[in-house]
Amino acid sequence: MIQSSQPKGRELVRVQDLTPEKADQLIWLRARVHTSRAKGKQCFLVLRQQQFNVQALVAVGDCASKQMVKFAANITKESIVDVEASVRKVEQKIESCSQQDVELHIERIFVISQAEPRLPLQLEDAVRPDGEGEEEGRATVNQDTKLDNRVIDLRTTTSQAIFRLQSGVCQLFRDTLTHKGFVEIQTPKIISAASEGGANVFTVSYFKTSAYLAQSPQLYKQMCICADFDKVFCVGPVFRAEDSNTHRHLTEFVGLDIEMAFNYHYHEVIDSITDTMVQIFKGLRDNFQTEIQTVNKQFPSEPFKFLEPTLRLEYTEGVAMLREAGVEMGDEDDLSTPNEKLLGRLVKEKYDTDFYVLDKYPLAVRPFYTMPDPNNAKYSNSYDMFMRGEEILSGAQRIHDAQLLTERATHHQIDLEKIKSYVDSFRFGAPPHGGGGIGLERVCMLYLGLHNVRQTSMFPRDPKRLTP
Amino acid sequence: MIQSSQPKGRELVRVQDLTPEKADQLIWLRARVHTSRAKGKQCFLVLRQQQFNVQALVAVGDCASKQMVKFAANITKESIVDVEASVRKVEQKIESCSQQDVELHIERIFVISQAEPRLPLQLEDAVRPDGEGEEEGRATVNQDTKLDNRVIDLRTTTSQAIFRLQSGVCQLFRDTLTHKGFVEIQTPKIISAASEGGANVFTVSYFKTSAYLAQSPQLYKQMCICADFDKVFCVGPVFRAEDSNTHRHLTEFVGLDIEMAFNYHYHEVIDSITDTMVQIFKGLRDNFQTEIQTVNKQFPSEPFKFLEPTLRLEYTEGVAMLREAGVEMGDEDDLSTPNEKLLGRLVKEKYDTDFYVLDKYPLAVRPFYTMPDPNNAKYSNSYDMFMRGEEILSGAQRIHDAQLLTERATHHQIDLEKIKSYVDSFRFGAPPHGGGGIGLERVCMLYLGLHNVRQTSMFPRDPKRLTP
Repeated sequence: MIQSSQPKGRELVRVQDLTPEKADQLIWLRARVHTSRAKGKQCFLVLRQQQFNVQALVAVGDCASKQMVKFAANITKESIVDVEASVRKVEQKIESCSQQDVELHIERIFVISQAEPRLPLQLEDAVRPDGEGEEEGRATVNQDTKLDNRVIDLRTTTSQAIFRLQSGVCQLFRDTLTHKGFVEIQTPKIISAASEGGANVFTVSYFKTSAYLAQSPQLYKQMCICADFDKVFCVGPVFRAEDSNTHRHLTEFVGLDIEMAFNYHYHEVIDSITDTMVQIFKGLRDNFQTEIQTVNKQFPSEPFKFLEPTLRLEYTEGVAMLREAGVEMGDEDDLSTPNEKLLGRLVKEKYDTDFYVLDKYPLAVRPFYTMPDPNNAKYSNSYDMFMRGEEILSGAQRIHDAQLLTERATHHQIDLEKIKSYVDSFRFGAPPHGGGGIGLERVCMLYLGLHNVRQTSMFPRDPKRLTP
Repeated sequence: MIQSSQPKGRELVRVQDLTPEKADQLIWLRARVHTSRAKGKQCFLVLRQQQFNVQALVAVGDCASKQMVKFAANITKESIVDVEASVRKVEQKIESCSQQDVELHIERIFVISQAEPRLPLQLEDAVRPDGEGEEEGRATVNQDTKLDNRVIDLRTTTSQAIFRLQSGVCQLFRDTLTHKGFVEIQTPKIISAASEGGANVFTVSYFKTSAYLAQSPQLYKQMCICADFDKVFCVGPVFRAEDSNTHRHLTEFVGLDIEMAFNYHYHEVIDSITDTMVQIFKGLRDNFQTEIQTVNKQFPSEPFKFLEPTLRLEYTEGVAMLREAGVEMGDEDDLSTPNEKLLGRLVKEKYDTDFYVLDKYPLAVRPFYTMPDPNNAKYSNSYDMFMRGEEILSGAQRIHDAQLLTERATHHQIDLEKIKSYVDSFRFGAPPHGGGGIGLERVCMLYLGLHNVRQTSMFPRDPKRLTP
């Protein structure tokens, strides 16, 4: 066990750097035993580091004894080993490994950390596309088994790719907004009152009283605008005590939130958000091709398409498209999930984009703080954004006038006492502003064409899952 | 009220761009009324945008009527106005404004959002250094009043500077680590078991059962290392149900967390963390001088000093320095808060640095998952880091062997059943690893030489404060 007793050791080479240029060099490497197969006087190992792997060989001869081959053959899968080996060019490409042009001839091998012999799941089963290999009786791993053993499941090439791409989404989101002059803020998650209504909120014991977990940073983002931060964003957990067991709901997810003051029209806000999304899509397309293709191997999907500038449709146009496709719905009805998906397909057919904005929702289906449309009282200055026909963002111009906010809250029969501090935020001068909240896991799921948000949450939380 | 009825409007100039080059131009500007003073046929306004402000004048004459001067004089402080004005160079610098070389001659003025006349606090009182102006009977604002009215308090130059610098700390932290090959992870905040012991943990109602708020991402960071992510960081809220009402404790704060696999010695981890801190200190020094000086005006402090490479002392050395200064303490006693501060002063005197690492803490005072020192069973491979004598990070090499972890937990009389999933994470091959958790608010407080962590938390949470 490495307990830091020696300050320095051998130089270790990375698997991804094992190329023909290193041929005939003697190197040290630390990696996991991905597979191991003994065959007479030889033992073939595949050694893995994250998404990279290389074939290695222990053979009885000059540098290995029979005992050593036996020792190597008995090392359990997923154990971490240090090996000293010479790099050899191979005649025929090794198709099953990422390093196809070389193999390692092992001279010494030490076990750094031994895995228990019975793995709860096999990595090769966990990355097998659905249906493939069924006739040969090869297994796939169901989602609950994967999630129950997430530490093993996260080692697969698919999981490594998904979460490296997710890390990229966060970075692209922040870099784009920082570049646009936004300031990052940190908002509290423990709050004294359920700002967006009492439903779907988790209660926390707080010393001798009770508190709630924030369903979004909405109120705090708006307070920062009233406090002259002008343009703000935050990345952090949001909590929804919703008993929804669907492919796209989590009880805790990561919100990418934006709020900004604008000069004259909330379309300035829409333009900022859509441009940010486009920068994310471009960044993923340009810098994460390996990850996208790795995920596609297990979960095939069409490349994600988007337009510049982003397509913006009005709600009434969307309703007209749906009606033309045979859907019956009223002007002020909200979109059901199946209708959202259908509209996504219709938009894709007509405009060839997987990303668009639906603007000017009916006022009746939006929260009380949504600014009404100045020209038509039935509609509002609010919008949703969709990726592959599923909602990833909901946003609006917010009411920045205490009196109008009070009227709208009263109309929605909201207890004014409970939202007093919220309303009071607008009494000392508030600029017109708007924003929106994006679900990180949904963006990753839909960009990659996956079908369950649990695949893009490292440790997902839903009404039935609290562990690991 | 701007309800987005017109898509585009006038071009608006920023206050910070009002320089002599714009002299004699007619411009439009949106800003807050910072102060207003009527004087005969004239009204002097100071117009403010964030930390920038400019003097403006409405005078009876060609372009303003007596009524207009009266209207301007009656606009309440903190209201947001649009003005059309010509820019004029001034003979004598206007010392009280950020734009010292020009003033505005207003031709038209509109109120965009009106502030109520009675402000809960005056911005000029909120930025007054303690003690200053007392003889003239000028007020300062106490901290609770500031926090109760945070939307107003955040508008002060001091607050604007503090939170812009805080945004910079997060960015520098992430950029440095991303550059070093770290991956950003998102860890759950709702957890099923109190991973770090049952004390000081908030309980959440979770559908028909109970859950807890994570006291740190410790377990999840370590699981990511066991899942081959190699080097990870996360930025997010951590929760401590500790009834501590001190200048440096919050019940919710932002953790900057790091965890990484290392090759041979946990000093590789210390080096990564200290280098990251040094990059943050340099970034702040080089890019946030204006913010630092703005805060210093209200809260004077010495510039923050650091060494390269970072000073690392062993715990025994620290104890020896304290004993030499007259402190009585045993070899394996933990450092009390006053002794930490004293040691910070002694280190500053001897080494001229405000940042250092104290390495090799006694095993007895560290959590059960801390790796013991291989050479001396009384000590451990663990460390704290200090800024101006206060702890900002606690970290260690973690035990990555399930058997040793079980032994240490048993020694600490911890219920093995409750930490089973944690211990099991290490059964399928785990690399040696270490890390640490940094408190964002403390870093900002101590870098700026402030004396209360509530000043560097936008909406602080403590046992007595849950709002706003």
